[in-house]
Formats: sequence, C-alpha cells, structure tokens
Amino acid sequence: MNSYIGIDLGGTRIKGVAIDANGNVLHQTYTPTNDGEGRVWKAAIKKTVDDLKQKLNAHKIVVGISAPGLPSKENTVIGFMPGRLEGLENFIWSDYLQCPTNVLNDGVAALVAEAKTGAAKDSTNAVMVTLGTGVGGALLINKQAYQGSFNKAGHIGHMVIDSNDDCDVTGMPGSLEECIGNCSIEKRSKGKFTSTHELLIAMRNGDDFAKDVWLTSVKKLAIGLASVSNIISPDTIVVGGGIAEANDDLFIPLNKWFDEFEWQPGGIRPQITKAMHGDLAGAIGAACFAMQK
Amino acid sequence: MNSYIGIDLGGTRIKGVAIDANGNVLHQTYTPTNDGEGRVWKAAIKKTVDDLKQKLNAHKIVVGISAPGLPSKENTVIGFMPGRLEGLENFIWSDYLQCPTNVLNDGVAALVAEAKTGAAKDSTNAVMVTLGTGVGGALLINKQAYQGSFNKAGHIGHMVIDSNDDCDVTGMPGSLEECIGNCSIEKRSKGKFTSTHELLIAMRNGDDFAKDVWLTSVKKLAIGLASVSNIISPDTIVVGGGIAEANDDLFIPLNKWFDEFEWQPGGIRPQITKAMHGDLAGAIGAACFAMQK
Repeated sequence: MNSYIGIDLGGTRIKGVAIDANGNVLHQTYTPTNDGEGRVWKAAIKKTVDDLKQKLNAHKIVVGISAPGLPSKENTVIGFMPGRLEGLENFIWSDYLQCPTNVLNDGVAALVAEAKTGAAKDSTNAVMVTLGTGVGGALLINKQAYQGSFNKAGHIGHMVIDSNDDCDVTGMPGSLEECIGNCSIEKRSKGKFTSTHELLIAMRNGDDFAKDVWLTSVKKLAIGLASVSNIISPDTIVVGGGIAEANDDLFIPLNKWFDEFEWQPGGIRPQITKAMHGDLAGAIGAACFAMQK
Repeated sequence: MNSYIGIDLGGTRIKGVAIDANGNVLHQTYTPTNDGEGRVWKAAIKKTVDDLKQKLNAHKIVVGISAPGLPSKENTVIGFMPGRLEGLENFIWSDYLQCPTNVLNDGVAALVAEAKTGAAKDSTNAVMVTLGTGVGGALLINKQAYQGSFNKAGHIGHMVIDSNDDCDVTGMPGSLEECIGNCSIEKRSKGKFTSTHELLIAMRNGDDFAKDVWLTSVKKLAIGLASVSNIISPDTIVVGGGIAEANDDLFIPLNKWFDEFEWQPGGIRPQITKAMHGDLAGAIGAACFAMQK
C-alpha cells in the first residue's frame, strides 16, 4: 500500500506532511528553504521526504510537491517559473526522489486541501482566492482541481477591474492584484502604509484615510469575485492568504458588496468562506493530489 | 433507437433541426415565435417537433430545447426567465411534448454545437462569447458543457471592465456587455449610431469618431477575454453573435490586444476563432445536448 507525502516549496520555508487516507495530517515538518548558501532546497526536500518516510515506516511512497510557477501538462515538472528558485523549471523530481512524484501549482494545492478537509469539502464547484503579496487563485470543477488547457487556470489576480489603470506584472490593466494585493499597498495608500497589516491597525484606531483605502480595495475585490461568480457559478468562494486574517473587517463589507454586484437569479448565491488550512495548505493539498492521481 | 430533435426558442423565430449521430443536420424548419395573438410559441414548438418526427419517420424521439433564461439543476425546465416569454418558467416540456426533453440556456447550446461540429470541435476547454444586443457566453470544460452550481456559468457579459462605471441590467458596474453589446451603442456613440452595423459602415467610410468608438470597444473586449483566459485557461475562444460578422475589423485588433494583455507564459495562447454555426447553433446544440444526456 502507498503512503502519501506532500511538500510545499515556499519562498522562506519548506513544509512537509504525511497524510492518512482521509487527508488528515499524521506528521509535519518545517525546514528553511535556503541557509544563505544558495540552492539547498532540493536537498532539503529530499531530506524532508526521507524523514517523513521513516516516521511512517513506509515502503512505498508517492510524493506531491506544491510550488510556485506553472506545472507541465502531466504535472511531472514545474514547466514555467521565471525569476526565482533557479533550477526548479523542468527539474524531474521523480528521478531525484526515486519515487512517483506529482508537481502542482501552490494555489491549486491549497484549494485541493480545502476541498478534501477544509472550507470547500462539501463543494462541487469552488473558486479560491488567496490574498497576500500577490493575489492568487484556483478553481475546483466537479470536485476536481481544474488547471485548464495550459495549466494556468485560476489566476484571478490577473483579471481586469479598471481597464484604464496601469498594467500589472503580467500585463493586465487595473488588475485585481493591483487593487488588493500587498504589493500595491504603498501605491494605494500614497506611501502612508507599507503593509495591509499596518493599514488595518490604523483603520481600527480611527484613521479615516486608512478606512477609505481599505474599503475601496474590498469593494473592488467584491466586484471581481462577483464577476468570477457570474462566469463560473460556484457554490463556494474560499478566501485565503494573510489578508483573510482581517476577518470581519474583510468579510462583512465583502459580502454586502458581493450581493450588490453579483447577478443572483432567484436570490441564490454562493457562500463566501475563509480558508481553514493555514500554512500547511499547500503541503496537504499536494499530498491529496498525489493520492487522487 | 432514438432520434434527436433540437429546438431553439428565439425572440422572433423558433428554429428546429433533426440531427444524425454525428451532429449533422438532416432537416431544419423555421416558424415565427408569435403571430401577434400572443403565446403561440408552445403550440408552434409542438408542431415543429411533430413535423420533424414525421420527416424522420421516427418512433422514439428525444428533444432538446434551447431557450433564454436559466435551466433548473437537472435541465428539465427553464427555472428563471423574468420579463419575456411568459409561461416559460417552470413549464414542463416533457409532459407537453410527450417525450423526454432537456432544456438548456441558448448560449450553452450554441457552444455545444460548436464543440460537436464547429469552431471548438477539437477543444478540451473552450470559452464562447456571443456579441449581439447583449453579450452572452458559455464554457466547455473537459469537452462537456459546464453550467456551474447554479446553472448560470458563462455569463461573461456580466464581468467588470471598469469598476467605476454605471451598472448593467444585472447590477455589474462597467460590464463587458456595456462595453460592446448593441444595447449600449447609442450611449457609446453619444447618440450618433443606433446599431453596431451602422457604426461599422461609417468607420469603413472613413469616420474617425466611429473608428475610435469601435476600437475602444474592441480593446475592452480584448481585456475582458484576456481576463477570462487567465482564469479559465481555455485552448479556444469562440466568438459568435451578429457583431462577429465584422470579421477582420474585429478579429485583427482583438488578437493584437489580446496578446498584449493576456498572461502568456512560454508564449502559449488560446486560439481566437469565429463561430461556425449561424442561426441554427442553438437548435443543433440542443439536439446534441439531448443526445449526450
């Protein structure tokens, strides 16, 4: 019988989990992605896998790896990942780890975890949006992770919100990522804040400018999610990432504006819910994906 | 053996087809939707079905009906269709026609036809957009029509393009429909034109204002489709509806701007192609859908 191990290759830490058949975490480990000496992450992943295999006392393992970038058609390698993690593109993990290995995008992995044991576990069709430095996302269609024809589906951060505004890193004008991602907080706050966290603290302390900046961003997120919902018609929208920790300050105005802008024939609408898996979402999802393959 | 009949209930005409197992049209008929006396369309559909059954010399038939509005979960009735075609909502066609009958949205039906024998026949995942009075659409996912959890998927006319602009009929601010649908041509042209057809004639005769209005609309369509492509990652985008008859005046600038705004990792992009089925698309798609069910 196979045992399933999931790895999430993050910018700062490598997270590893071993799961049981129901997707529950049996063991978990954290390792730094780099030690200052450069590319140690390949060896660190190998060690993480070996350690978890030993803890499981397993003979046959299957590994899933969640990583930034776009996987190849068959989810065997990360086919596209410019700029960071040199050596990741087209690296064949199954050869290196000496076991069957599936590779998937980290946003997709997070949604697979939510669909298995989290906020989307009763969903048939779901949209996930992750609000962090950038804005990522993923789609669940007929209970399966949907990656699209070129494995880039779910990049809802790179949809238009204001067609006359400046282009984002992918070339999309006035994108959702520019409206609410941490990457644009200085621009949105005219240099006053360097993080959404700071902005929210100021707002809670009565800063009207901070409140205006925040609510403008949330309104645009609502318009973006209402658009996606008119296109995908999901039963659930899962909101994750660090900015989701704003909790009521996010979800109360978001729901109000979503109802105002979404087309809701017969009064029916999807549920908007916070992601349940924290920083292990990618690793858990990668292991679940390996199990489903 | 079953024979398959498709009906498209349009605003002015009822179109009927009988198809063979490959989706090819064996017979086709056209009937006015109304004769001025009111709701004759139910009886007209019954007569269309009976005539086609007789032409086929068929014993057992299965019918598909393409109609505006949103079908119920099981595609047995149109569950939501406010304003027009009174009596269509929740009307049980299988009882009335005395045969198994599937009902689907007309935009979805058009894409099913394109996927079976038209512009998307080699597609795995496709997006269709129909440019007419309004802007409709539909999604093909894993070679199947995808309707979503509430059967409203594919309404890409009701996605945002400019979040600060006026809301459309569904409540979406600055929607794609408002940017290029015939419904907004007077507004976009400051009252100078009453149809896209007129606008295009003026542009071809050297009217710079008409050219500016048109290209602004096409650019916004490109930004919208690039956004949808970043979300769905289709291999094909099918453009249908009367405005697609602009041909090169549409497709040349559309492709140029699409390449500018879409995220194209590795230089890979979907094909943008004109719908091949004309006004029989809905009827053919409805018959194909009935066959697939």
